[in-house]
Amino acid sequence: MSRLQPRDVTFMRHALDLAMQGRGYVEPNPMVGAVIVRDNSVVGSGYHQKYGDAHAEVEAIKDAHEKGVDVKGLTMYVNLEPCCHHGKQGPCADAVIEAGLGRVVVAMEDPYEEVSGAGIEKLVKAGIEVTVGVCEEQALKLNEAFVKRVESGLPWVMCKWAQTVDGKTATTTGDSKWISCDRSREIVHRIRGRFDGVMVGVRTVEMDDPVLTARGVVVKRVARRIVIDPNLRLPLNCKLLKEDGPEVLIAACGKVAGEERERVKDIESFGAKVVPVTRREDGRLDMCAFMRLLVKDYGMTNILCEGGANLTGSLFADELVDQVLVFVSPRIAGDQDAMSAVHGHNLHHICDTHQLQLDNVKQIMDDVLIDYRVIHPNGPEHRVL
Amino acid sequence: MSRLQPRDVTFMRHALDLAMQGRGYVEPNPMVGAVIVRDNSVVGSGYHQKYGDAHAEVEAIKDAHEKGVDVKGLTMYVNLEPCCHHGKQGPCADAVIEAGLGRVVVAMEDPYEEVSGAGIEKLVKAGIEVTVGVCEEQALKLNEAFVKRVESGLPWVMCKWAQTVDGKTATTTGDSKWISCDRSREIVHRIRGRFDGVMVGVRTVEMDDPVLTARGVVVKRVARRIVIDPNLRLPLNCKLLKEDGPEVLIAACGKVAGEERERVKDIESFGAKVVPVTRREDGRLDMCAFMRLLVKDYGMTNILCEGGANLTGSLFADELVDQVLVFVSPRIAGDQDAMSAVHGHNLHHICDTHQLQLDNVKQIMDDVLIDYRVIHPNGPEHRVL
Repeated sequence: MSRLQPRDVTFMRHALDLAMQGRGYVEPNPMVGAVIVRDNSVVGSGYHQKYGDAHAEVEAIKDAHEKGVDVKGLTMYVNLEPCCHHGKQGPCADAVIEAGLGRVVVAMEDPYEEVSGAGIEKLVKAGIEVTVGVCEEQALKLNEAFVKRVESGLPWVMCKWAQTVDGKTATTTGDSKWISCDRSREIVHRIRGRFDGVMVGVRTVEMDDPVLTARGVVVKRVARRIVIDPNLRLPLNCKLLKEDGPEVLIAACGKVAGEERERVKDIESFGAKVVPVTRREDGRLDMCAFMRLLVKDYGMTNILCEGGANLTGSLFADELVDQVLVFVSPRIAGDQDAMSAVHGHNLHHICDTHQLQLDNVKQIMDDVLIDYRVIHPNGPEHRVL
Repeated sequence: MSRLQPRDVTFMRHALDLAMQGRGYVEPNPMVGAVIVRDNSVVGSGYHQKYGDAHAEVEAIKDAHEKGVDVKGLTMYVNLEPCCHHGKQGPCADAVIEAGLGRVVVAMEDPYEEVSGAGIEKLVKAGIEVTVGVCEEQALKLNEAFVKRVESGLPWVMCKWAQTVDGKTATTTGDSKWISCDRSREIVHRIRGRFDGVMVGVRTVEMDDPVLTARGVVVKRVARRIVIDPNLRLPLNCKLLKEDGPEVLIAACGKVAGEERERVKDIESFGAKVVPVTRREDGRLDMCAFMRLLVKDYGMTNILCEGGANLTGSLFADELVDQVLVFVSPRIAGDQDAMSAVHGHNLHHICDTHQLQLDNVKQIMDDVLIDYRVIHPNGPEHRVL
């Protein structure tokens, strides 16, 4: 392995920027960008544009060749270790070796078991100078959902809500329209337009009758709509069932019998799908098992949870939440009894609260958008398959 | 009145920066800075440093003279209209005229009735070119507390609290130590060290037994400690009474008789002062009258309210709050029943919440500090004396 050289960080940032353009299009693959540099100038670049399409390394080599550049001996920057297995595309490591690149700078190893260092090893064995770890932190962040899924078999879960400054998401009468401003709500639609699933509890359907689609924005992938509804309480006249839209999955208690079988039929007659999930000893649905199922059977990488408070609370209790996105609206409710965003905990000491890490803060008009990552005190290992 | 000239904004910003250095030292006076400019260079500057000391204009002229500069015909930038009345110091307008300045650029008129345009008029009559309104917004903001007091007879009230992301200020058992991080708490001490009063409700004394002093920071002015305690419930063994510190004022119901007279004596034996306040028809203390009294009898310009939730709620209900400062700690409590920051409202619709305006957002380690101004729907007029 070779050491950091001047401008390595600059060109890796370029590769990361390119990679980012694939967000929403490439999942469950990781986002990857690559640039080829000669004499401190980029002479070829590319990124993984869509699931099933060519990988970034191949795109960058192709781009250079199309520009009439001989890439032999040149340096490539790529934010993820080139793959060495045959998936939808041939191994990128082979393409890199074949093109004759002289040096490859990699931001992070691929956590995917079939790669995980083997791609780098292949390059080194072929006599290519390899530098690993440039902008590793940014690279891990960019593909945090991919890494989570590969390492644990669980999807990346983002809980999102809008609240008043004093933490209220609805009044005692259930009114919540609208806490955040138009521009904040547009951001929510953009997020829906790049996630695999949008999840709510059945009570939220009963209260708000939401549609949960991405409206008025570029839809990069169509999110399935997921309702957690252990006892199949879902009203048959709700918009989720009645109006056209992406597939609706309903997570219900696994043992469906008698009357309930009829109810499943009724619900599924609208085109929705009832997914049986085992009930845990404490009576709650096994959300962890359901999340794994969403990865395995539906290829999901990321889930947006839009409440309500009981569902969010149970996801926190099960340590299934990775990211929290809160829109703080410039309002004071002043009512202790108005609804909070997260229920279900019986808290005696501040030190027992769930700990987050601040990631980013933005002003959206007079709203404040705060983006957190959840710190799992037991580390991610306890969740590994 | 003359128009804006190139670099007027630049030099006014300089004057505003200088003015700011008086914060905490000059109240109840406004913060004022002045710079004298010749050929786009500052040749003299000064600011009002301490209540009772020389005003900014006089300081700037003196500074220029000390540097051997002849200020005749030169331009002065000052963020507040020069005064024309005799207070602790002679009128600044006279000093400016006498020094022979050729042009005076003023950010804002003085709202103080005895000045309010008369200072500017005096300069114009003396043949000085005057420009008004340069950086007016920043100037109004800088002296917002002064303007509020002069226009309404009420102090500037900042409500401050620390909460979890989901809006909890304490657990059901009352635990609140510590929600925010060390650096956030240091900021609170710095604010205490430049305010005239720190106010809490009696329940906060009962629960937390706070000292309410500014510790470990530069104390620019010593804040009196104020407890809202209508029925004189204050425990005689609380730290506010027992430990040495700045004066403690206790706002109690006005009609003190019988047993209560003894209690007043007991409390005052610790050096605290019980201030009788009239009770309103709805049974609550007349906080508006008490706030006016703090301005009139104690010369206060700004009050920091540190809760609890009932006091904060009543200040909001009475439209006495001007600023809200919230420290959002990276924690999720997840308990609907844990304490919120503001109580007492019975909210049915989101549109009935109190509206704020976002002023500033800062990251303090993993805490987010959000600074708001309160929008009074009825405008400030309804509060004018």
